[in-house]
Amino acid sequence: MALAYDGTDFQGWQIQEGKDPYQTIQGASEAALFAILGEKIRITGSGRTDAGVSATGQIAHFDADAAPGLDFRRALNSHLPKSIRVLAVAPASPSFHARKSALYKTYTYLFWRDPIVIPPFAWRVMYPAGPLDAEKMRVATAKFVGVHDFASFQNAGTPQKSTVRTVYSIFLKELPPVSGIPPHIPPLALSVTANGFLKQMARNIAGFLAEAGKGRVPADSLPGILAARDRSILKTPTAPPQGLTLSYVAYPPKDSFFLEMG
Amino acid sequence: MALAYDGTDFQGWQIQEGKDPYQTIQGASEAALFAILGEKIRITGSGRTDAGVSATGQIAHFDADAAPGLDFRRALNSHLPKSIRVLAVAPASPSFHARKSALYKTYTYLFWRDPIVIPPFAWRVMYPAGPLDAEKMRVATAKFVGVHDFASFQNAGTPQKSTVRTVYSIFLKELPPVSGIPPHIPPLALSVTANGFLKQMARNIAGFLAEAGKGRVPADSLPGILAARDRSILKTPTAPPQGLTLSYVAYPPKDSFFLEMG
Repeated sequence: MALAYDGTDFQGWQIQEGKDPYQTIQGASEAALFAILGEKIRITGSGRTDAGVSATGQIAHFDADAAPGLDFRRALNSHLPKSIRVLAVAPASPSFHARKSALYKTYTYLFWRDPIVIPPFAWRVMYPAGPLDAEKMRVATAKFVGVHDFASFQNAGTPQKSTVRTVYSIFLKELPPVSGIPPHIPPLALSVTANGFLKQMARNIAGFLAEAGKGRVPADSLPGILAARDRSILKTPTAPPQGLTLSYVAYPPKDSFFLEMG
Repeated sequence: MALAYDGTDFQGWQIQEGKDPYQTIQGASEAALFAILGEKIRITGSGRTDAGVSATGQIAHFDADAAPGLDFRRALNSHLPKSIRVLAVAPASPSFHARKSALYKTYTYLFWRDPIVIPPFAWRVMYPAGPLDAEKMRVATAKFVGVHDFASFQNAGTPQKSTVRTVYSIFLKELPPVSGIPPHIPPLALSVTANGFLKQMARNIAGFLAEAGKGRVPADSLPGILAARDRSILKTPTAPPQGLTLSYVAYPPKDSFFLEMG
């Protein structure tokens, strides 16, 4: 199934021991499934999103015997809070696994550049004090493309077998102005597509780019930071979760069931 | 001054007798001004916005003796909730009046066309059950342009001397997709610019267009509805306030102080 959610009020995707499961997207979704099927069924996401991170295209799978004619999307949405929406549900091949089958993911990150944060955006952006130079940020993004060891962009967490990831594309786009009152600086959207993301890698990339945009970190410092394979060498802060949205997860053609969902 | 606000949690712009003034934008702004100057000063807006309506460019004026060097914008924002932001403050000519000096205003209205409302938009759109045909809506918009008696598009309220208004421009724009999960139908934004708006006129235009988009009202019924000068002839419902944003108020060059604000 494909899900969209506003992460603001949630403790992230993943159910965590000792925490209220309803405060996670996974927990709330499993509760909705339980309400429909009367059975405790595990829902596996394409990846964990941190507390405060939103999604417009999270993919998850579960194994269930569906009664013929059951409209899962409608039934799940009727049991979920409005801040979580099931966009589509469809049968997948038996080998499909939301995380393991994923080819790549796209995250977007919103930077607010105006001194005043206009309300609908207030809780969905990074608000870097001071102006951001989009040109400096653009120069810095180019250096992320390709196969790199991203250990320096990984925060402490579950150890990974490999910290090598491939960034397929990364670009910045100026969004349309939100206000017509000058001097208004339109927000910037960052889009990063990679075959996988280490813990808080997307937010560490966003944090690095924000500092590059402030002129505090030269764009050409990236190769040295990557070569160090050490988060402590990356002096820039992890960008706050509210600016981040998981926007797309791609699968091989045989598993792209959601592309045919109605 | 120029203001932006998220109308979701407010009872509209205008302070109303017997209601908590802090639940109005005007009341909250006057309270912030009182906190700074220790004086009860009236703030006059370019117009009332209904409960639930947002703004990205509301203009308001007040008369105050400002201490030299007082940064009104910063001071007001430090006393206002985050859902109200002062974008700019500047001295105006003594003859300036936020409502009476206005030449025209632009409102935008968001229509959500997908069956599933993606969370960040859930409380900021009209969600018309069933699909909307943008082409039918476009045909209907064209007929609004020009000088018309809009009595049929006015809801009951304070009587107006004249119900004739001039619509300078009105257009629909398809917004970028919010989700990459098909079949996703991107939202539509309506923009209406007129020399004035009667009570709930913008929302009645949006309501009419939504019904035109559903094919329930022919676009060519508009001349007859306008000629009737009677709200009860307009069978279509007033569109809900959360889809509406006051985006711009224009003044003559001598009063366009906010265009030079820093």
